[in-house]
Amino acid sequence: MSSPQIPVHKGLEDIYVKESKICYIDGERSKLFYRGYDIDDLVKYSTFEEVSYLLLYGKLPNRKELNEFQKSIRDSYTLNPEVIKLLEIFRRDTHPMDLLRTCISYLSTFDDSPKDQSLEKNLSRVIKIIGSIPTILGTFDRIRRGKKPIEPNPKLNLASHFLYLLRGKEPKERDAKIMDTALILHAEHEMNASTFACTVTASTKSDIYSSITSGIGTLKGPLHGGANEEALRMFLEIGSIDKVKPYLDELFVKGKKVMGFGHRIYKNYDPRYRILKEIAKEMSKERGNHKLFEIALKVEEEVLKRLEKYNIYPNVDFYSGLVFYFLNIPIDFFTCVFTMGRVVGWSAHIIEYWMDNRLIRPKALYKGELNLPYKPIEQRE
Amino acid sequence: MSSPQIPVHKGLEDIYVKESKICYIDGERSKLFYRGYDIDDLVKYSTFEEVSYLLLYGKLPNRKELNEFQKSIRDSYTLNPEVIKLLEIFRRDTHPMDLLRTCISYLSTFDDSPKDQSLEKNLSRVIKIIGSIPTILGTFDRIRRGKKPIEPNPKLNLASHFLYLLRGKEPKERDAKIMDTALILHAEHEMNASTFACTVTASTKSDIYSSITSGIGTLKGPLHGGANEEALRMFLEIGSIDKVKPYLDELFVKGKKVMGFGHRIYKNYDPRYRILKEIAKEMSKERGNHKLFEIALKVEEEVLKRLEKYNIYPNVDFYSGLVFYFLNIPIDFFTCVFTMGRVVGWSAHIIEYWMDNRLIRPKALYKGELNLPYKPIEQRE
Repeated sequence: MSSPQIPVHKGLEDIYVKESKICYIDGERSKLFYRGYDIDDLVKYSTFEEVSYLLLYGKLPNRKELNEFQKSIRDSYTLNPEVIKLLEIFRRDTHPMDLLRTCISYLSTFDDSPKDQSLEKNLSRVIKIIGSIPTILGTFDRIRRGKKPIEPNPKLNLASHFLYLLRGKEPKERDAKIMDTALILHAEHEMNASTFACTVTASTKSDIYSSITSGIGTLKGPLHGGANEEALRMFLEIGSIDKVKPYLDELFVKGKKVMGFGHRIYKNYDPRYRILKEIAKEMSKERGNHKLFEIALKVEEEVLKRLEKYNIYPNVDFYSGLVFYFLNIPIDFFTCVFTMGRVVGWSAHIIEYWMDNRLIRPKALYKGELNLPYKPIEQRE
Repeated sequence: MSSPQIPVHKGLEDIYVKESKICYIDGERSKLFYRGYDIDDLVKYSTFEEVSYLLLYGKLPNRKELNEFQKSIRDSYTLNPEVIKLLEIFRRDTHPMDLLRTCISYLSTFDDSPKDQSLEKNLSRVIKIIGSIPTILGTFDRIRRGKKPIEPNPKLNLASHFLYLLRGKEPKERDAKIMDTALILHAEHEMNASTFACTVTASTKSDIYSSITSGIGTLKGPLHGGANEEALRMFLEIGSIDKVKPYLDELFVKGKKVMGFGHRIYKNYDPRYRILKEIAKEMSKERGNHKLFEIALKVEEEVLKRLEKYNIYPNVDFYSGLVFYFLNIPIDFFTCVFTMGRVVGWSAHIIEYWMDNRLIRPKALYKGELNLPYKPIEQRE
């Protein structure tokens, strides 16, 4: 069973686990498509709600469909009072990703018909989850700062609503638009680790809450969504342009990774990085805060000098943290903002997988001993 | 990118995702080994605590090591009062797997040093989780029945402790021994779906709580751990021997699966099934309750007539439910009992994976359109 010719696909690199009509990444040409639409077009013309509909239903909505969909999402802004009760018992220093994972898991206990696994019912659960996340986060942020939570406002779109709950007042149109763009850019990205975790959980015919809970726990890791928070903390830690080189020298000597760099699929610039960099640049001008952007720029330049020859480029997480920082989102919320968007892609993949479900059950190649004799405890070393 | 010759490994059947020294399943010869030891020997001579040590540390413990390990597990029987508070706010009709998934996720928020990802610290987290699960379940069962939770008793081993918390009195030796055997049999089973979900989550360098939370949500599904509950419910629903044939006729006509049958690796009898069947048989005699066992026996016989030619045999879940039922464990707890054992195998695999971590990031084969023109909403159908 351990003959040397058996291939082990560690990391499942280049292994296709399903067919899909949701997303295509052209890693050579730096292109990203959701349901066949170029991400550049979607950022320019669309909204997060419309993109969510597109990902979940497979087509762009007409006016009536979009209105209904938006209404359902906004109806979900208001949490069950028992969820608020849960938010109140969390320690104030809880990492928001731990909180979010726990809360989404908890939402399952309010499902009125858990046996109903119809497509329609699952879509309604998904909508509920999408609409709940900003309120969960915004409410917790108020609670942990000792402030009274803001009442949800169903007049706002999801991006504005999140900023509204954090700030206690409606964001300016410009901030709302940037937040919306960020959500579009994070909504979906093919069979990444968290989407795959959702799929593995779904494949046992478990439920949508379990699956999305797996996604959140997986996105949390620094090799995945956790990178945006770490990239921004790195810029802050460096503190000034002249410290970029020595900082990176030390990092490279220690053999550590630079957060926000590299991607298994892109062998060229990540198209989401380009858009977010442009936004970060404009925001740094608008806010008169050039320093942090310039540090980021310098880090990028220095790292590229060392890694471009290996086709390692900045990814979505390199500038997104800076954008969130300029939006005054708490740093420990960055990966949660990623989740606010990505939950849509997760759901689309779970639903697609259930259309033609197959239990995901790979193998491990055994490299240990066999038929060991059981020794009584007194005879053991 | 969608040329027909690209293989899609749906379900990852026969794909090896890592090398491992934890478990070997000999599916042809009906043999199962934990760390090289035959499961038959472990059931005969060992205990769940000893097997847990074996799986986690890679060797059978000597007396001192076992004593220390047992002490650490027993120290974890007592929950943080804030976890009890959480148990009290759950709806009484919450599915225990939803509850357990939420509680383990919540445990993360009490970690005193989340940045410490050393092996030693992770092992101490694992021990904490292993020891907590019976108390979480037992306490919730008392609460939902309107009874006062039982104080944990660190004098009991884990199997006895679980029955003690449910029943309010110490179990007889015979029941405790059966429970212990069931836990040993459920402790580990190579790269099954839930263990794989744990591994995918761990691969982003997320944390042990996130990973085990993914495992619980994945085990919940009826194509995995959820099967033991469903198998027992089937026996109860059938109700009498003469109804077995018509029940199965209908099931097969409808093309439905028989729960507790079939396994991707075993092409012969599951060795765990053999042991559990023997126990169920003895228990049915001891309790003078022959009916349910005979129904199970008849279901087995009738299904084998139809499926043995396809190498489909009963698996671990077919008789385990009956054993749990005879132990007076609530039916909706059955998959949680599976979890009480399997959490050990999950943890062993997570820890082994982290020794040589690689991000798990497969691909989806794109089968949709590309370069669709974005139409303004008014022009859409």
